[in-house]
Amino acid sequence: MGHNSFGSAFTITTFGESHGEGLGVVIDGIESGIKLDLSMIQSEMDRRRPGANPLGTFRSEQDAVTILSGLYQGVTTGTPLTLVLFNKDQHSADYSALEKVFRPGHADWGFQQKFGIRDVRGGGRSSGRETSARVAAGAIAKQVLAQKGMKIFAGTVQIGTLSTQKRNWEEANNFLCCPDRETAREMEKLIEQVRSEDDSIGGIIECHVQGVPAGLGEPVFNKLDALLAHAVMSIGAVKGVQIGDGFACATMRGSQCNDQRDSTGFLSNHAGGILGGISSGQEIVLQAAIKPTPSIARPQKTVDVDNHEQLLEIKGRHDPCICPRAVVVVESMVAITLLDLFYCAHGRQK
Amino acid sequence: MGHNSFGSAFTITTFGESHGEGLGVVIDGIESGIKLDLSMIQSEMDRRRPGANPLGTFRSEQDAVTILSGLYQGVTTGTPLTLVLFNKDQHSADYSALEKVFRPGHADWGFQQKFGIRDVRGGGRSSGRETSARVAAGAIAKQVLAQKGMKIFAGTVQIGTLSTQKRNWEEANNFLCCPDRETAREMEKLIEQVRSEDDSIGGIIECHVQGVPAGLGEPVFNKLDALLAHAVMSIGAVKGVQIGDGFACATMRGSQCNDQRDSTGFLSNHAGGILGGISSGQEIVLQAAIKPTPSIARPQKTVDVDNHEQLLEIKGRHDPCICPRAVVVVESMVAITLLDLFYCAHGRQK
Amino acid sequence: MGHNSFGSAFTITTFGESHGEGLGVVIDGIESGIKLDLSMIQSEMDRRRPGANPLGTFRSEQDAVTILSGLYQGVTTGTPLTLVLFNKDQHSADYSALEKVFRPGHADWGFQQKFGIRDVRGGGRSSGRETSARVAAGAIAKQVLAQKGMKIFAGTVQIGTLSTQKRNWEEANNFLCCPDRETAREMEKLIEQVRSEDDSIGGIIECHVQGVPAGLGEPVFNKLDALLAHAVMSIGAVKGVQIGDGFACATMRGSQCNDQRDSTGFLSNHAGGILGGISSGQEIVLQAAIKPTPSIARPQKTVDVDNHEQLLEIKGRHDPCICPRAVVVVESMVAITLLDLFYCAHGRQK
Amino acid sequence: MGHNSFGSAFTITTFGESHGEGLGVVIDGIESGIKLDLSMIQSEMDRRRPGANPLGTFRSEQDAVTILSGLYQGVTTGTPLTLVLFNKDQHSADYSALEKVFRPGHADWGFQQKFGIRDVRGGGRSSGRETSARVAAGAIAKQVLAQKGMKIFAGTVQIGTLSTQKRNWEEANNFLCCPDRETAREMEKLIEQVRSEDDSIGGIIECHVQGVPAGLGEPVFNKLDALLAHAVMSIGAVKGVQIGDGFACATMRGSQCNDQRDSTGFLSNHAGGILGGISSGQEIVLQAAIKPTPSIARPQKTVDVDNHEQLLEIKGRHDPCICPRAVVVVESMVAITLLDLFYCAHGRQK
Repeated sequence: MGHNSFGSAFTITTFGESHGEGLGVVIDGIESGIKLDLSMIQSEMDRRRPGANPLGTFRSEQDAVTILSGLYQGVTTGTPLTLVLFNKDQHSADYSALEKVFRPGHADWGFQQKFGIRDVRGGGRSSGRETSARVAAGAIAKQVLAQKGMKIFAGTVQIGTLSTQKRNWEEANNFLCCPDRETAREMEKLIEQVRSEDDSIGGIIECHVQGVPAGLGEPVFNKLDALLAHAVMSIGAVKGVQIGDGFACATMRGSQCNDQRDSTGFLSNHAGGILGGISSGQEIVLQAAIKPTPSIARPQKTVDVDNHEQLLEIKGRHDPCICPRAVVVVESMVAITLLDLFYCAHGRQK
Repeated sequence: MGHNSFGSAFTITTFGESHGEGLGVVIDGIESGIKLDLSMIQSEMDRRRPGANPLGTFRSEQDAVTILSGLYQGVTTGTPLTLVLFNKDQHSADYSALEKVFRPGHADWGFQQKFGIRDVRGGGRSSGRETSARVAAGAIAKQVLAQKGMKIFAGTVQIGTLSTQKRNWEEANNFLCCPDRETAREMEKLIEQVRSEDDSIGGIIECHVQGVPAGLGEPVFNKLDALLAHAVMSIGAVKGVQIGDGFACATMRGSQCNDQRDSTGFLSNHAGGILGGISSGQEIVLQAAIKPTPSIARPQKTVDVDNHEQLLEIKGRHDPCICPRAVVVVESMVAITLLDLFYCAHGRQK
Repeated sequence: MGHNSFGSAFTITTFGESHGEGLGVVIDGIESGIKLDLSMIQSEMDRRRPGANPLGTFRSEQDAVTILSGLYQGVTTGTPLTLVLFNKDQHSADYSALEKVFRPGHADWGFQQKFGIRDVRGGGRSSGRETSARVAAGAIAKQVLAQKGMKIFAGTVQIGTLSTQKRNWEEANNFLCCPDRETAREMEKLIEQVRSEDDSIGGIIECHVQGVPAGLGEPVFNKLDALLAHAVMSIGAVKGVQIGDGFACATMRGSQCNDQRDSTGFLSNHAGGILGGISSGQEIVLQAAIKPTPSIARPQKTVDVDNHEQLLEIKGRHDPCICPRAVVVVESMVAITLLDLFYCAHGRQK
Repeated sequence: MGHNSFGSAFTITTFGESHGEGLGVVIDGIESGIKLDLSMIQSEMDRRRPGANPLGTFRSEQDAVTILSGLYQGVTTGTPLTLVLFNKDQHSADYSALEKVFRPGHADWGFQQKFGIRDVRGGGRSSGRETSARVAAGAIAKQVLAQKGMKIFAGTVQIGTLSTQKRNWEEANNFLCCPDRETAREMEKLIEQVRSEDDSIGGIIECHVQGVPAGLGEPVFNKLDALLAHAVMSIGAVKGVQIGDGFACATMRGSQCNDQRDSTGFLSNHAGGILGGISSGQEIVLQAAIKPTPSIARPQKTVDVDNHEQLLEIKGRHDPCICPRAVVVVESMVAITLLDLFYCAHGRQK
């Protein structure tokens, strides 16, 4: 499969650089006859967009989606859906200072070693802006999954050492989508403080899927948990993924960790809805560790392409925390993975 | 790709059930002209074999590897290498009691929902014994990687709440491959105690790769970290994967988490050797969360295929902790992933 | 996908050399709950086996199939089916004369250039014997397709310049499966004559599929005709593939070639059952050009690995015509392709 | 792999309908550092464009290529190259008459059965216009292959029963790229005559590749000839593919068909440059059978979506012969296949 594709039956291929002509996604394998809600796609894009969020950057990226193919009279035809975000206002001049220097914590170093060349404008292909194409595809996957009874939502459950055990999703209408209104306010204050210190901070995002039928996922390499880990770990800022109790399982006994069952169903969900790589019919629960934004204004030691030492202060406005905008990206990758596995199991043709 | 295959340039396809005629692996895409060390393959198999380890089960599985194809005069020809473990002594009778009941924490429930049928003998395809095929393939991948200067090793760094920060790998010649001799002894005692309580316990395995050239991994969906997460999470007992500082990144500031650099190299390795999905040339470090063995002798609530409630006590000898035998499985999946990416980047032909 | 795999939803991976330990196939993605007829698999193997056919070689290859995995109580479980043919009686000594010389018309030259090494025993991986693994997989695909109402059969319609327009398949119970009893007898005489001249001869095999539902195949690269061409051209002896009227289309007008339709159905089938890459519901018809067996006893000019000129006479008994044994191989590749596309469209899960 | 993707190491994904917003291709896996000649891409597009050719239609399609991603300062970066042709002037109104009726010889019937819906404007996804995306990708593949010493060219060698054995490629600067100036003139006259009869006609295109290194292609399913057959048969109008002597092999003896060799090289090229699925280092030669254009103005029997019989006369200007415009499409698919196999063997990274 192509390096920029994900999925085998429902396949997305993304393309584009932060400051090139445009970014987008080709969605291949969607069933025909789906009437798309275009405003829902746009509102998902807005959840990821900088500027929509007081905790984020003040840049206003242009995230209006153009559909180039695959729709006829508003309905999917079964041919590739292509969605493009044209870049309008790239300000490439801002990035000239970065042309020869490697930003700490960024992809710059690996790119240069691998390709010998990189598009330095806004991070090029490794910009967080690449995830906008995933969100566009995820919005469509969510619409299809909703018709099959599946619902996906995520939120921030930890920022720095501030975490919450509360999962009241009706309270999640805050910028962090945190399911605990009180903690959300403290998290927002913490992020503001970190910003004022020219620094950034990490967090944890938790994602839930309801209505997943039992039987998705394959027993060995394409376990549902393995594919979800692949999907979520492919988001730039994610450094860890856990399913159900995850790393806490290390401290548990089998008698605690096993989900027992009576005739009414499972009595617990330590497994996060996945047994032996196959969905059990329970709610799927996973968490992703989000690292602090690497772009910070504090001086950092680095080198340039000639290996000369530099002290770099990254100018411009950057998110002090990636979580607010990453929530919808996590949801999107989970949605894309589930629809792919659904089509693998059941086909896409009626 | 097939559901039981992993990798695109270096592809392994595994097959077989715990108590069928045999298990094995077809390795497709290896370069020609590699002289294989067959005794090293067998010694890797022995690291995973039950009975070889006082902390494990007392069953003696037959793990002698037969090579069916791909070798000519001891050297790889570039055609598929097929390695088979024939099952000799299956004792299928032992499993008749499990034919209609779903074992808590096992794949049974999902399998039955997905396929409507399952081979109940020893867990069938979902048996831990499936991983022996991965170890055979991993042994070969390791031999090829060694010729390219890469070295992979792993060990247990946590059992229950017993963990260690020490990383003295010369002390890792214990059954847990724990890089801290003192803690290893305590861990072994804890596992014995858990076994005496008819229970089981989880842990954390850490894997290192040295000598990885910069430039492996692809920028978007096939990030090195995403593929490693896929690979390691596809091991049955793994419920979480983290790269570098992983979930600890959630509590960090950007100024702590970024790996700065001077003209002599990186000044830290919080990223675990991967930046923007591409190897940086630093050591790769990842951790896997291992859940407690689900098979325990304590009575557990479950149902049978007619949804009648049952109280199940799993007879027979089972490992009280999966870590000792999972170490080599983690190493193997990491090796397979790296060789695949190496061939993707550089080809397999001279 | 692996180099030795074919298919995406129903994937076969073959392995093995002519004179190694064994050849076989891993079949990944078959639906569960299929009761296999093992004697039918064996009888398909016998159609390809040398020695079963007076027109062929007198060697008696061992083609008894062993099933290593994927069956439980005679029924598929949805896990990989592995079928192996163990090589019993390899007579490798016979091939020592060929170790350093390149046989004209054979894969030897390309192998040596590509891999720098080759298993010379019986042609190694490039032996026609490799197709026995395809026939085993094809037998299983045929059984599944039969349950879905599809029937596949093929026969020889041309040997040398002897061809027939007759398609009376009830007359096809001859060694060439030629649907014209009279012509079959002449063909057999011609093959005997060619054999007596220490030479070999080519032919054309035609394959039909009945009962294919409309809608299989994808509009662009995975057109049903493109996948069938890939499948059939991957058989070593095949040098051309045509669908429906094929190369005769070059001489036709649109008014002749288009299949018109009235309310009772299509009025002709020049397209061979495929329109725009998608099955139309008509019978699928394709033809494969089979080259003469390259192994002949006549002296031929060639070189050895040191580029010294040699005059080679290939000893041993070889088929003077590949068609009799290739018929079932063509059927098998067509069956595998159709089942793959069926699962792509409709899934394999109930 | 996605249904609209081709290739595994060098992967193209095409999208778009004849009269949608745009068509295009995402090219994934190209090496970095290639300076692209954009005018060469455009001139390749012009070879396929209607209106550029007196033998073709008089419509003037807009085939100006826009590059959305993957280039930085005119050089490839190793990230996906995206090329789009925006549709300017779709005249969708012209197609309303075809909304409910199935055109004989077209994809309409299969599409409707498969998807239950189709974009009728200009043939939608099954329009010949889809191949413009392949030509754009092929132009890039050709540029990369040229740097590796490979050269691809094709021409028409038969129209109706008019064929030529002459291969003087310096004479191929005619609209049919026929390597025989005299025959080309007769072919052109024949096509004009067929057009005046409101009919269309088929032909044969032959493609050559020079400079292919020995060793491309894999021994079993991914034989070079099998992949070329897949590639070329995926072009809508192609109904047959043959390599080297192809169907003529059926009439040959082994002593004629085998390519013998002396110390200076091969003494003939009946195999078309491919032995055992692997390039031999000789010139690759293949032929494709092109069916007559299905759109003709003569009345044809068909049915509409309610199965009511219709007598259809297809209005508008259509090519009386597909060959003139298909030559560059065949070359493009061959180029894409070869570059994919080159990267599979040797990688794309330096």
